[in-house]
Amino acid sequence: MNQQNESAEPRATSNTESASQASAPPPAANSPEQQGGDSGKRRVGRRAGRSATREEILNAARPMFAERGFAGTSIRAIAREAKVDPALVMHYFGDKEGLFRSALELPVNPREILSKVIEGDREKLPERIITTFLAVWEGPVTGEAMQAIVRRVFGEPDSFNLVRDFMGELIIESLSPALKDVPEEEARARISLVVSQMLGFVLGRYVVGLDSLQRMTHEEIVTYLEPTLRRYLLADLGDIDTSAGEHS
Amino acid sequence: MNQQNESAEPRATSNTESASQASAPPPAANSPEQQGGDSGKRRVGRRAGRSATREEILNAARPMFAERGFAGTSIRAIAREAKVDPALVMHYFGDKEGLFRSALELPVNPREILSKVIEGDREKLPERIITTFLAVWEGPVTGEAMQAIVRRVFGEPDSFNLVRDFMGELIIESLSPALKDVPEEEARARISLVVSQMLGFVLGRYVVGLDSLQRMTHEEIVTYLEPTLRRYLLADLGDIDTSAGEHS
Repeated sequence: MNQQNESAEPRATSNTESASQASAPPPAANSPEQQGGDSGKRRVGRRAGRSATREEILNAARPMFAERGFAGTSIRAIAREAKVDPALVMHYFGDKEGLFRSALELPVNPREILSKVIEGDREKLPERIITTFLAVWEGPVTGEAMQAIVRRVFGEPDSFNLVRDFMGELIIESLSPALKDVPEEEARARISLVVSQMLGFVLGRYVVGLDSLQRMTHEEIVTYLEPTLRRYLLADLGDIDTSAGEHS
Repeated sequence: MNQQNESAEPRATSNTESASQASAPPPAANSPEQQGGDSGKRRVGRRAGRSATREEILNAARPMFAERGFAGTSIRAIAREAKVDPALVMHYFGDKEGLFRSALELPVNPREILSKVIEGDREKLPERIITTFLAVWEGPVTGEAMQAIVRRVFGEPDSFNLVRDFMGELIIESLSPALKDVPEEEARARISLVVSQMLGFVLGRYVVGLDSLQRMTHEEIVTYLEPTLRRYLLADLGDIDTSAGEHS
């Protein structure tokens, strides 16, 4: 679960580029700025013998990012901690974001992916967000790494068992009587969608602390979330072609 | 953050009952079944000198719940671990759920609250869920405890700083150009609502592992979530009476 292996070497990720799925833009692991180094646009991959230094930089970077946050950590400070020249940090990781992605072992460049997502037909933006999201989170190459990261960031599996067993089941069981006119499996799916929205809201407002969510008044929250929960619980959820089953 | 004090003594919580807010049903800390003990319906509160035993039971219960989950842990096993009679566990905590709530320091009984939420006008169910949710998560008595629990369950604050600084800001910054025709603050609010839904979906499907979310195909996920994201990003979000400002 807590593996620290550097499977996502930023310079040698040609197979990551095959991680695109179905209708989604490909998650690109190599951002152009990450390629910048001492040798122009050369893409020849790993340099044997230097990986120890690279690892030392990452080992210095992780606790500093964790303690001071992304904004509060400088390349210079990390270089000082790792006892290397800042130019060497840039050489290996391109910029602070590249270093951060490597420290987190992010297999994709979220900025690059998102910049592609917003291109194109505005009416299809919501769908593009979801399909890209699924391609990244469940793609054959990126999925495992992304899920490992989120498990690492959001604590211990033990706790999650409890959340699932107790809160998940308890919420589903407690709310089910309100949906007694639909089949049980549908009721569970509907309530679990409600749980997904409210769980994300809890995390975003109280734990991660996203400014915009924290600033919302109770009245705004009701106004914004009520139609979402109404649709998940009471409305037609839309036609599903059950013959597809593309979920692995 | 990690305080282990037993502020939510299940037998002496009269002030918890004042935690109800505005239009929400009161979060009730004392479930009826929790009152059952050696002395019928007596509600006379703490017994001095026994809290050490109570604490020992909780200390035995916490790691067992964490390792084996709620379903995999029995009152009998906890009693054996704490070297007390199972009847004494029942005496202090009523039943396994009561013990679990105390082990988590849950200041409310979610089952009881939810059973009240589903009573009444079905059309108002979505709103009741949200207002009750806010009363529990931000009520003067229950809010702090609930937020402390979720922080404890979902890992370390350090990680959250990173998620907020990097992912939160990066996602907002990257998606903002798609909403360049709305004021910046509104764009941030809209995108943060999208983040709240997708974050909860990630947690629910990949981390907590709610069955119903895990079973959904990609096509179902798009069908279910697309209208939510469409409304958050592109639709009229509804009238907000900005004069209210009830959020403390």
